[in-house]
Amino acid sequence: MSPGVHWINGRADSGLDPAERALQYGDGVFETLPVNGGEVAYLHRHWQRLRAGCERLQLRFLDWEPLSGEVRRLAEELHQGVIKVIVGRGPGGRGYGFAEDSTCTRIISTHPPPPRPTEYASAGIRVRLCQLRMGIQPALAGIKHLNRLEQVLARAEWGREYAEGLLLDCHGRLVEGTMSNLFIGREGRLFTPRLDLCGVAGVLRSVLIDEAQAQGIEVQRSRLTPLDFASATEVFVCNSVFGIWPVNDIDGRYRFAPGELTRQLQQALAQRRETDGVWYRE
Amino acid sequence: MSPGVHWINGRADSGLDPAERALQYGDGVFETLPVNGGEVAYLHRHWQRLRAGCERLQLRFLDWEPLSGEVRRLAEELHQGVIKVIVGRGPGGRGYGFAEDSTCTRIISTHPPPPRPTEYASAGIRVRLCQLRMGIQPALAGIKHLNRLEQVLARAEWGREYAEGLLLDCHGRLVEGTMSNLFIGREGRLFTPRLDLCGVAGVLRSVLIDEAQAQGIEVQRSRLTPLDFASATEVFVCNSVFGIWPVNDIDGRYRFAPGELTRQLQQALAQRRETDGVWYRE
Repeated sequence: MSPGVHWINGRADSGLDPAERALQYGDGVFETLPVNGGEVAYLHRHWQRLRAGCERLQLRFLDWEPLSGEVRRLAEELHQGVIKVIVGRGPGGRGYGFAEDSTCTRIISTHPPPPRPTEYASAGIRVRLCQLRMGIQPALAGIKHLNRLEQVLARAEWGREYAEGLLLDCHGRLVEGTMSNLFIGREGRLFTPRLDLCGVAGVLRSVLIDEAQAQGIEVQRSRLTPLDFASATEVFVCNSVFGIWPVNDIDGRYRFAPGELTRQLQQALAQRRETDGVWYRE
Repeated sequence: MSPGVHWINGRADSGLDPAERALQYGDGVFETLPVNGGEVAYLHRHWQRLRAGCERLQLRFLDWEPLSGEVRRLAEELHQGVIKVIVGRGPGGRGYGFAEDSTCTRIISTHPPPPRPTEYASAGIRVRLCQLRMGIQPALAGIKHLNRLEQVLARAEWGREYAEGLLLDCHGRLVEGTMSNLFIGREGRLFTPRLDLCGVAGVLRSVLIDEAQAQGIEVQRSRLTPLDFASATEVFVCNSVFGIWPVNDIDGRYRFAPGELTRQLQQALAQRRETDGVWYRE
């Protein structure tokens, strides 16, 4: 049985047209929206990234209003959990070329909150460095597109021994986690990998960069390698569904305690929550 | 309307479960089978590559017998055209991790013969060098997986001005066409790009390598760049649906007449056809 409930172009329980190019070629983009108390956190930033992805892939998606209404309604019904939105290029014929006037397909699914130990956020997590190296592809870097075989293969490298795996690109530079972005703290400053060559520019990553800078913490988007762990004082990963997880062990080679900057940003997110009544609301 | 007719796990006209990972992540592989006179050409080699792709992606596809029977039956009904087979990892929950015992989905569609001018095979075609550079990803190189955004973006670089576009990798080396493989002829020898870092190892490419070697023509799998066009005497692209197309113009910078080796291999394929009664039959 398929977990989650799906809506396709506004219709529930409808099967997908197998000619859909999101299926045939991974020709589309997606967003994973955290729902807390019936509201989507950072919705505006998620829509911004979805829009950027559509532009980069020349996806002519026009149904922003129905999409927005459906997500609002489903978030209220779901109350707690995750909404996933896929925008595919729509049904097409055989061949990579697409019609300029093709009508995009929107697929929305709702999911219960992923079960994750609460101590991940407090005590931190154990991560591995994945063997799979990410390819360099500036044309797709930053956006959340549907070509995710690298993440699938990387995630298949372990079972339950690690909470997350970190990915290097083919030149050995740090990029991100399989489902998260990476930050390194050193001497009061934060560093996060540049995502102009590969990787997904996460919504919480952008929130945390803004939040840190608002608090006077310098953040650098840099080319980093695992050697940078040696001089790091703290490391964390983040995404908009689970928030911030301190990293306390990398392959048994590097060990960290949850650091000052990590705590400070976790508190900032928690305060937003108290202030706004919803988790991570902008 | 969706072109083509689709069968999902043996059922016609059924919609696809939107939780299918082939849709969610491009988590699967495919084959494009040329059908001529009711038979699939080079079927064994197509199954070999599909099998290799399943192994590389750890896809536990078990339904080879139903798949094979369905393809045989549909090829007879179609008589002329193309059958596309997709093997997806099957429906899954949210998240890149997959269940080891997940049941794969097979999606088969039939398509009429693609309309292509016959002079492409005789007089040759005009091609462009695409601006998009392919990423390096040995974990996915060679197999025909569903993460095809690079090809989609490359194909979007032109309309009808060219019959095909050639792709370079991020280091500027020649890889293949968007839907074909590439051969260069020089002084009686053939060269074709190595596909260990990216690209799809085409079925007709493997046929032609074997055929050329059987005829005493040396074939080298090499690292090639566009500079190799300057010393080439002939260039052609191939795939198992359209066969061999001589290249007569590359961006107006390199010009070729259909060459001796190209003709020789075209004749070899045509002779197979006469001998076996079907196009490209092994």
